[in-house]
Formats: sequence, structure tokens, C-alpha cells
Amino acid sequence: MTEDTICALATPQGTGALGIIRVSGKDSVSIVNSVFNGKDLTKVSSHTVHYGFIKNGEETIDEVMVSVFLAPKTFTAENLVEISCHGSYYIEQQILSLLLKKGCRLALAGEFTKRAFLHGRIDLSQAEAIADLIAAENKASHDVALSQMRGGFSSLLKKLRIELLDLASLLELELDFSEENVEFADRDQLLTLINQIMDTINPLIDSFSYGNAIKNGVPVAILGKPNAGKSTLLNALLQEDRAIVSEIAGTTRDTIEESLVINGIQFRFIDTAGLRETEDTIEAIGVAKALEKAKEATIILYLADVDTLNWKEVGDDLDKFRRENMHIIICPTKLDKHPDFNLTDIPKEIQNQYTVIPLSAKTNPNLADLKENMYSYIEQQKTSNQTIVNNARHLDALLKAKESLLLCNEGLQTGLSSELISIDLRRALEALGEIVGQVSNDELLGNIFGKFCIGK
Amino acid sequence: MTEDTICALATPQGTGALGIIRVSGKDSVSIVNSVFNGKDLTKVSSHTVHYGFIKNGEETIDEVMVSVFLAPKTFTAENLVEISCHGSYYIEQQILSLLLKKGCRLALAGEFTKRAFLHGRIDLSQAEAIADLIAAENKASHDVALSQMRGGFSSLLKKLRIELLDLASLLELELDFSEENVEFADRDQLLTLINQIMDTINPLIDSFSYGNAIKNGVPVAILGKPNAGKSTLLNALLQEDRAIVSEIAGTTRDTIEESLVINGIQFRFIDTAGLRETEDTIEAIGVAKALEKAKEATIILYLADVDTLNWKEVGDDLDKFRRENMHIIICPTKLDKHPDFNLTDIPKEIQNQYTVIPLSAKTNPNLADLKENMYSYIEQQKTSNQTIVNNARHLDALLKAKESLLLCNEGLQTGLSSELISIDLRRALEALGEIVGQVSNDELLGNIFGKFCIGK
Repeated sequence: MTEDTICALATPQGTGALGIIRVSGKDSVSIVNSVFNGKDLTKVSSHTVHYGFIKNGEETIDEVMVSVFLAPKTFTAENLVEISCHGSYYIEQQILSLLLKKGCRLALAGEFTKRAFLHGRIDLSQAEAIADLIAAENKASHDVALSQMRGGFSSLLKKLRIELLDLASLLELELDFSEENVEFADRDQLLTLINQIMDTINPLIDSFSYGNAIKNGVPVAILGKPNAGKSTLLNALLQEDRAIVSEIAGTTRDTIEESLVINGIQFRFIDTAGLRETEDTIEAIGVAKALEKAKEATIILYLADVDTLNWKEVGDDLDKFRRENMHIIICPTKLDKHPDFNLTDIPKEIQNQYTVIPLSAKTNPNLADLKENMYSYIEQQKTSNQTIVNNARHLDALLKAKESLLLCNEGLQTGLSSELISIDLRRALEALGEIVGQVSNDELLGNIFGKFCIGK
Repeated sequence: MTEDTICALATPQGTGALGIIRVSGKDSVSIVNSVFNGKDLTKVSSHTVHYGFIKNGEETIDEVMVSVFLAPKTFTAENLVEISCHGSYYIEQQILSLLLKKGCRLALAGEFTKRAFLHGRIDLSQAEAIADLIAAENKASHDVALSQMRGGFSSLLKKLRIELLDLASLLELELDFSEENVEFADRDQLLTLINQIMDTINPLIDSFSYGNAIKNGVPVAILGKPNAGKSTLLNALLQEDRAIVSEIAGTTRDTIEESLVINGIQFRFIDTAGLRETEDTIEAIGVAKALEKAKEATIILYLADVDTLNWKEVGDDLDKFRRENMHIIICPTKLDKHPDFNLTDIPKEIQNQYTVIPLSAKTNPNLADLKENMYSYIEQQKTSNQTIVNNARHLDALLKAKESLLLCNEGLQTGLSSELISIDLRRALEALGEIVGQVSNDELLGNIFGKFCIGK
């Protein structure tokens, strides 16, 4: 399947104490041995490390430690060698050039992981989880990636898919005997299995909004009239956790986007232009952008200065972007200047419809409440079984599977012909197979592994 | 000596397939074992690699490979463990935090190498060579660093120093018996040894200008009247080897500095303001800076447009910065516009004193000659014995040793008292000991290892 031997730098580029060059393939041990001055690597045991020198003929390139891993118990399930050299760009390039000269080829992005998949050591969803794990920047996304990498939901799906495949085959067998009107596939058993699969994939589909939020960060739009204290709130939020604040690249000039991790979940705060009717063209564009950002947000923080608070206007503003599955928190601000403001003054319909958390820029007594509220809202979306889908490709396949399974279910109950049910079953099997890579094509694999870093 | 266990990230920071966390010290194996879910690491053989998970209690942090190296055959000569985890900042930080909680402390810059030195596995000049090796960006500096790391001149110096120490001790013994006028130390033997050491360190001292050039790059100033074609030459030089061109940070605004590697040796080209008398204050500063750069350069490329060439002015310009050990190449330029220009027209005193290489911007027929000439000039400085000193601290110590040895030599020949000769001998021994670290102090060590990267 993969006959050639590949090599790549597996550690980040840059200067460091160590750099690791990975070599995988049938000839990896003999190729590295041909440039290694030390023990005969073709005679060592698997999972051992050897001291020596990498030499290009008479010329020494570096003093190294070489780890030898013999198939099949390796990352790629092929013979695998890791050369631990000094973390210098010059040395790493020299060693890679030498390996190329000796018959290796440079690995493509993700090719080591792709080989692990092609050799059946991991399934496709596990391979994807490795990239997610490396990219994870906080506890929540790290935990989901790790769980998926270790099997996650894919092992259960694989098992159910095989049972379904058996029944589908029997159903298709009936087609060969269509004149005889036989039933090889037990319809009740099929119906039970379909429902069982639906029970498995429905919570997975539901978990996506949470999974996606923790993978990409929860978008939180900060809105309100001009001078309601939006930027002050953003600064206050960030100051408390300055260490994990980062400015997101590609932010538009008129909206500021900053990230903050609360209890391991990343929130992306978008500070927007103040909402008001304006004749100023530039400002009008800003207001339009603010509303656009609001529509995409999962959480809205609507700030309103208690001094100029007009509940009618607040309701009008919210109506401009409100949608289902959106958590809106109304924050009356500048309370320090209005000690007489009373929460009970807030109209009942506002209190019933939205969460209200008043803020005072000076003392920020409720900042912790605000963070806790946002965190809880996201956390409550976590499904109880802890299995989370955070990959749009998986969601897409699950939705396709669900659609086809619903049609099967309906067909079985209305006594549809085996032929038509078979078509829907095939579709469901294909969709489920896509997730773990039992059904795949070169384009899909290229798309998935192309996003990996070289050396993984 | 070093009782605590240290840990650090040994690979460059950033996202990659792998990251390596190094742990060294008496308890390194047991500490890593306490967070490792896999084989019992306290029972495995040295130089073996083990698959498992790093766990913080019930919580899994990452799937890892752990390499165990048992003292004394390790980099630090202590028990050493390397954790190969996924190359994610989040994971690396989590594992480091966990190790700190379990009793490790974060390693200081260069502390792993310092421990190798303190345990006598390498001498100080070898430790310094490791940092040089990691920083080496071209073949020449890489080769010098590697040779020094593998013992280089330090083993010979150590041997000679021990012989000298023996004789010095005998000489000092005479002081205890000064009334009896005895001679324990054979004066002829001492003189022979001193000369032998001088013969060893003189070529080392001479090699520094080459060693320093290849370590830091050879400074080449491009000078000449305005519009002589200086920037055109720089561009032509760089274009041919664009891949290895880099702009040096910290370049002053009015001089442009670019690097180019020729046959493995780095040259730093400094393009300067044209030399002319000027009323313009800003330009005058530029001219002054050009002359300043010229004084520091090892090679001068003096460009002169053949159209306006005035040999008297050329001589006047050169006199402003000329010094010993400076290679001056005069390049008549724009020859394409003056096909009638003849090299024999150049005054004899110029031809005798300087190298002349004419250039034509259009065809650059002589660019290869120019590069070859610069390369040869540097290469001829390489001492025949291939042992190169590229470290200013070593040069300083060698010069101090030479000075003291010269005084000893003189003292022995003029029959100076043992007491006075002893003082100079002590000084020479101390200077020689400084190079390999047999004489050292905390400040010196802090200074040397503080320049290393963390994790080395």
C-alpha cells in the first residue's frame, strides 16, 4: 500500500535544545543505519534508543540519539525511526537532505497519521482528533479531542454499522429472489436496530453546538448604545485574566475581538460599534456590522447605561438580531453613578425573557456572576453521555445518516419494497462509514490530512 | 552537587507533531512514573522507550512515548527521562505543571548542559560548543562547533596543563626548602614544556580571526563614491543566492546589511552611503557611518565608476580607514559602458597594493571571481591543523596564558628566582584551566550557561 519511506521534521521549526526527525516505512531502519555511526540499528530491539553520529561519508553532521520502533507496534504501524538531533535549522536540513539522498522522500502534511489510518491502526475520526488535540488551546477542547482520539463515539458507531450492514446484505439478498417473495432480513430486528442507531446518533448531533463552541470558541457579542460601557466591560473581563488573553488575527478594523478562557472554555468577545440611528456613513456601516456580528453570536451581552435606559429601545434593538438558541444577557451599567437604581424597576416582560446582570465599572461586583452565567449556559449544553461531536464533517455525515434512517423507518412501517428500503439503508451505511473512514476517497483523505502539520 | 530534579521543554515552542519534555535528576524516573499510566518505569532498562498516558489523577493529559536513560550514560550523567508528547502548547504546559507539582523544578537556561559539565561528562569548552552548534547557520561554523564539542583542542590543552601542573608543584616545593637551595623541578624540562605549550596555543590564537569570522559572519563593507554601483552590486550578489539571504535585524537606517553564504562561510555585506564631501548634515552623518563601518570590516569592496575614476581620490578614501589585516578589493564598475577601459591603465602602486576585480552591472562576468576571491582570503586564514578557536573567552584565556608563559620563559633564561617564576606559572595554569573549566567560578558559569536556551 505504502512502499516508500518518508521523513520529516516532527518538532516545531526554530532553535531549541532538540529537534526530532521522523522516518517511516519499510526501509526506515536500514536507511537511517546507512548514515548512522554507532550500533548496527538493523540488529537492535524495538523501542530502544542508541547514541551515535549521523555521518555523510566521512563528514559528521551531528551527535544524535536514534530511537528504533519496529512494525507493527508503532505510530504508523510501519518500521519507524526517530532521530533526536540538536535543534538547529542547519543540522535538521542537513540530516533531511542526507535521508533524501539515501532513498527517503519528504512526507506530505499528515502523512504519518494517514499511514496509521491506512494500516488500520486508527480510524478516520481518531486521525482527525490528533490534529484537534495538537491545536487545542484549552481544557475543554483538549478533553474532547483526547476522548475522540482514544475511540470516543467511533467504536460504538462502527459496531452498530456492522450489524446494520449484515441486515442490509440480507435485505439485498432478497432482491435476487424477488419472484419468490422471501424475507431473509427480520423486519422487526431491522427496525429495532435502526432505532438503536438513532438513539445513538441523536445525542451526538445535539452535542455539536457545544462541541463546536469549545473547539472554535463561543462567540459573544457585546452590544449597546454608544457609551454604554462596552469597551470598559471588555477591558475589565480581559484584565482579570490577562495571561490567557490573545488578540485574534483578521479582526475587522471596526470590531475588536479578544479571547478569554473561563473554566477551560474559550469565549471570543466581539466589541461592536454603539447602536444608534446615524447620518454618518462610516458609523452606519459600523452599526450594520455590529448587528451582523450579533446575529452570529451564541451569547449577547446587551449593555445599557441606567442613566439613559429606555426599555422600549432595548426591546427594539434586540428584535433586530434575536434568534433561537441565543443567550441574551442584559447588563444595566454605571450603577455606581445611580445607587438608587432598583432591579425591580425592570419591566416584567424583560425580566421573564432575558437574564439581567447589572454591572458597575468601578467595582465590578458582578463580573464573576457574568462569567459564571456565560460558562453555565455553555456547560448545560454538554450532553450527559460526555460524547461530543466537534467536527463539521462528522455532523454532516450524522445528519445524512439520520435522514436516511428516518426514511428506512418510515418505509418499514408502511411496508415499502425491499428494493427502496435497501437504497436508503445503503445511504445510511455510507454516511456512517464516512465518519470512521470505512467509506472514503482520495479527495476526502487529501482534504483531511492536508490540514495537518508536516511531520505528523 | 545537584540534588533536585529539573524539567523543561527541550523542543522549540510552537505547534508541531511532537514536543519533548526533558526531566533530569535523581528522582526523574520516579517522578515521571508517578504520572505515567503504562509500564512501571522504575523497573525498565536504560535506553528504552515506553508507550502510555500522562495522567493527573483520573484525568488524562496526553498519549505519550517516554524514554528512560539511567545514570551515568546519559546527557547529564544523571537519570534522565524524555517525554515525547503532542506538540501543543496547552499539553506541554499541562505536563510541565504536573511535573512541578510532583517535585520537579523548572530548569534554568543551559542547566542540563551545566549538569553534564559539573558531573565531568564534558568540559567547559565542549559545553560552550553545544550552544554554538545549535546556533550554527552554515557549514563552516557548524564544523568548528562540532569539532570543539567532540574534544577539539581542549583534550590536548588539558594534557599539557597537567604536565605543567606537575612541574609547577615541584617548583613550589622548592620554596619550602628555600634555605637549602635545592632544585626539584628540572629547568630544562620546564623550558621544553613551556615551549611546547606555546607551540600549541600560538596557532590557536592565530585561528581566532578565522574562527570569529565564520562564527559571526565576515563583515564586508561596500564603499565608493555616490552612484558607483554599490547597491547594484549588493543586489546582484544576493539575487544569485536568494534562498539563503536574510536581512539582519537591528540594521541602522542608513546602512543596509545583508547576509550571504559562500561555500559554507557567511559574509555580512554592509552597503554604505556614498563617500563625498557634503554640506548636507544628514548625508555627512551617513558618510561618517560608512567610514566607521569600513574600519570594522575584514573585507572592503571599493567600487569606482570607470567613467569618473580618479586614482588619487581612491587612494585618499582608502587612507581614511585602511588598517592591517584588512583585505581591500577595488572594483572598477560600469565597464559595459566603457569597453575601452583597460586594466593595464591602473597605476602600478594600486595594482601592487590591492586586488582589482572589474565589474559590469549588466553581465556580471566577474561576480564569481569576486566571491571566489573573498572566500579564498578567509579560507587561507584557516590554520593547517584544523583546530579553530571561535570563542572570545577562549582567546582571552589563551592570550593571558601566552603572556604568563612568555614571562616564565624569560625568567628561566635569566635565572629568576623560583618564587617569581612560580607566580607566572600559576597565572598560566589558571588561564589554561579557565578554558576547559578546571578553574571556574559561579559568575563565569552563570554567564556561559545563561546564554543557552531553556531545555538544553
